[in-house]
Amino acid sequence: MENFEFYAPTRVLFGKGQEENVGKLIREFGGTKVLLHYGGSSAKKSGLLDRVKAYLEAEGLEYVELGGVKANPEIALVREGVALAQKEKVDFVLAVGGGSVIDSSKAIANGAANPEVEDPWDFSMKKAVPVRTLPKGVILTLAAAGSEMSESCVVTNPETNLKRGYNSRLNRVQFAIENPELTFTVSPYQTACGAVDICMHTMERFFSPGADTDLTDALAEAVMRTIIKCGKEAYLDPENYEARGNMMWASSLAHNDLTGSGRQWFLPVHQMEHELSGLHTDITHGAGLAALWCSWARYVYKYSLPRFVRWAVNVWGVHEDYEHPEKTVLEGIRRQENYYRELNMPISIRQLGIKEEELETLAEMCCYWHTRVLPGDKPLDYEDMLEIYRMSWELGE
Amino acid sequence: MENFEFYAPTRVLFGKGQEENVGKLIREFGGTKVLLHYGGSSAKKSGLLDRVKAYLEAEGLEYVELGGVKANPEIALVREGVALAQKEKVDFVLAVGGGSVIDSSKAIANGAANPEVEDPWDFSMKKAVPVRTLPKGVILTLAAAGSEMSESCVVTNPETNLKRGYNSRLNRVQFAIENPELTFTVSPYQTACGAVDICMHTMERFFSPGADTDLTDALAEAVMRTIIKCGKEAYLDPENYEARGNMMWASSLAHNDLTGSGRQWFLPVHQMEHELSGLHTDITHGAGLAALWCSWARYVYKYSLPRFVRWAVNVWGVHEDYEHPEKTVLEGIRRQENYYRELNMPISIRQLGIKEEELETLAEMCCYWHTRVLPGDKPLDYEDMLEIYRMSWELGE
Repeated sequence: MENFEFYAPTRVLFGKGQEENVGKLIREFGGTKVLLHYGGSSAKKSGLLDRVKAYLEAEGLEYVELGGVKANPEIALVREGVALAQKEKVDFVLAVGGGSVIDSSKAIANGAANPEVEDPWDFSMKKAVPVRTLPKGVILTLAAAGSEMSESCVVTNPETNLKRGYNSRLNRVQFAIENPELTFTVSPYQTACGAVDICMHTMERFFSPGADTDLTDALAEAVMRTIIKCGKEAYLDPENYEARGNMMWASSLAHNDLTGSGRQWFLPVHQMEHELSGLHTDITHGAGLAALWCSWARYVYKYSLPRFVRWAVNVWGVHEDYEHPEKTVLEGIRRQENYYRELNMPISIRQLGIKEEELETLAEMCCYWHTRVLPGDKPLDYEDMLEIYRMSWELGE
Repeated sequence: MENFEFYAPTRVLFGKGQEENVGKLIREFGGTKVLLHYGGSSAKKSGLLDRVKAYLEAEGLEYVELGGVKANPEIALVREGVALAQKEKVDFVLAVGGGSVIDSSKAIANGAANPEVEDPWDFSMKKAVPVRTLPKGVILTLAAAGSEMSESCVVTNPETNLKRGYNSRLNRVQFAIENPELTFTVSPYQTACGAVDICMHTMERFFSPGADTDLTDALAEAVMRTIIKCGKEAYLDPENYEARGNMMWASSLAHNDLTGSGRQWFLPVHQMEHELSGLHTDITHGAGLAALWCSWARYVYKYSLPRFVRWAVNVWGVHEDYEHPEKTVLEGIRRQENYYRELNMPISIRQLGIKEEELETLAEMCCYWHTRVLPGDKPLDYEDMLEIYRMSWELGE
C-alpha cells in the first residue's frame, strides 16, 4: 500500500431536474460572467441549452457562448476559447456536454487564467504548468470520460496528429450536475463506447503495480461489475433511468482516483489508444480502447498472473482453475471480449480502419520516437507496443 | 435511485510520515493561528504532539492548546474551546486524535465562528444552525468514527445524559492526515470497537430504504467485506501496516456518504446506541453498536427480506436458501454475531452493565419521550425500541 493523496472536491448534484440549480451553484462558487461551452447540435435540439440560458438569466448571470466542441476536442477551439474568455473577462466556465466539452473547458480555464503562457497547447506538451485556473462547472450529458470528477484534461492537435493529456489539481471542476435523463438520447454506439471507457479507467488502475490495497481493489471490482451490467442495460434500453443513473455515477467514481488509491497509476491502454484517435480523429476513444484492451491483456498477463486471476474470478465470475491459472485468466479475457462484441464494439483496430502499414507509425508515436517506455508490471517499449497493435490488428481478419 | 448530493471535499494525505506536512497544509488553507485540540495522554506519550508542535513552529504558525477530550466528547470542553478560540482569535482548528477529538473540534469551530449563538449545545439540540465555521484539519490516530470525512458532529451533555449529533456541510474538514502507523498503539479493544463502528456506518446506509442503487450497494458490500477482514487482522496483529491502512481508509469511506448515495439515510442503531453511551458515558460507541445490531436485525429483517438476503450472501458468503430466505438471513446475522464474539465485543447490552430497570428509560430517551419514531423500512416507536433493547439485554443471560 503506497502513500497517496485523495482529493476529489467536486460537488455532485445527482438526479432528475438538478440542472435547474446551475445558476445558483455558479453564484455560490463566485461566478458572475460565464463562458457557456458546448458541442454540437444535440444540446440545442434537445432544448437543454435554452433551458440553461434561462437558468443563468434567472440568476442575473451574464454569459458568452462558444459551441462546436468535437469528439477528441481540438486545440484550435481551446485557443479561441481562451481569447474569448480573456476579451470578455469571464470568471466562470460552464461545460454542457460530455468529456470532450469538459476537457476543452478545463483547457480554456487554464489558458485564460495563465496569460503568461502564450499557447495553451504548451500545457498538453508539458512545456508549461498551470498555476491558476478559473472555477468550472459541468452539466453532464454523456456518461463516459469521467472528466467531471477527474484531474485530467486531454486535447488533440490535428496539425501534429497528437492527442495529449495532463493532470493537475486545478483540473477538478467545482460542481457537476448529473441528471441521468439527459443521457437518454445518447446513441447505443456512444453508450457502448462510454461503458468501455468507464470500465477502462478502473481496469487500468486495477492492473497498475501495487500491493495490499484490499479496500481499493474491492471498490474497483464493484465498479467494474456494475458498469459491465448497467452499461449493457443502458445499451439495450436507452431510457432505463436506473441503468443510466448507475452508469453515470460509475463514470464519475471510476476516474476520481477512488479505485486506484494506494496503487501506482499508469494508463498504458489509454496511451496506446490516444495514438489511434490522434491519427484518425473520427475514432471514438471508447471504441479504440475496446479494440486494444484484450490484446494488451493477452500480451502482459503473465507478468502479473495472480492479479489477472483475481480479476477473472471476482469481476467475471470465472471458476478458478488452481492448477492452470492461465486458463482462468484467458477465460476472463474471453468474456471481456465477448462483452465488447455484445455491445457491438470492435475487438480489433482493423475494424476501426487502421491499415497494416500504420502499425509502425502508431508504435513510433506512442513511444515518443523511442524516448519513452510505458511503465507497468510489464513495461512496454516500441517493440512491445508494435506487437500489441499487431495482435489487435490481426484479430480483425 | 433517489436524487442526492455528494460532496466530500476533504483532502486526504494518506501514508507514512504524512503528518510532517501539517504546517504546510494549514498554511494552504489560510490558517495563521491554530487551536491545537487533542485528548488524553497517548498523543503526548507517543511524542506525536511534540512533533506536531515542531511542524507548526517550523511553518511559523502560532498555536494555543486545548487537551482533555474524552471518549463521548462533552459540551463543557466545547464551550471552553469556543471561549478560548474567540479570546485568542484562532483562525484554524487542528484535531489530533480520533472521532471524539474531531467532533469536539467541529463543535468548537462552529461555536467560535457563530458568536451570535450563545451556547454551542444549541447546534446539537437543533435550536440553531451554524452558518459559518473555521477551517479545520485532522491528524487521525484512531480508525473508527469516520468523522475525518463526514459531515456529522456528535457531542454529549452529561448534565442531561443526552448525546446528540447534527449534520452540516460546514462539518467537513479541509484536510485529513491518515498515517496508519499512528494507530499501531490502539488497544485491541479499541481496535475492535473501531471495526464495529466503521462497518456500522456502511451497514446502516445499506439497510436504509432505497432501490436500484447497484453501484452504491456494490461499493457498500466492498467496504463491509474489507473492514470485516482487516478489522480482525488489525485486532490480532496491531502493527500490521496493511491491515491498519485498509482499516483507516475504510473508516473514511464508510462515512463520507459514498456507500449511501441514492438511498435514504437513517441510523436507527446509532440512535439507539447514543442513549446507551449518553446514559453511561464509559460505554464505547462501537461496543454499544455491536451489542445492539444483531437484535435490531432480528427484529426488522422481515420488513426488508430481499435486502437482508443480499447482505448475507454478498457480505458473509452465506449459501442462499431460495426456499427459506429467512434461514439465509438468520445465518448471516449469526455470522455477524460470531464475528463480534471473535473480536471480544459484547452482543448484549447487559454485558455493558445495562440493568433491566433501565430498558424503559433507554426507550423513553430514544423516542424523545414519545415524540419521535425512528424511520426505516420498519419504523421504530417506543414499543419497538423497548423490545429491541430487551432482546439485546436477554442475550446476556
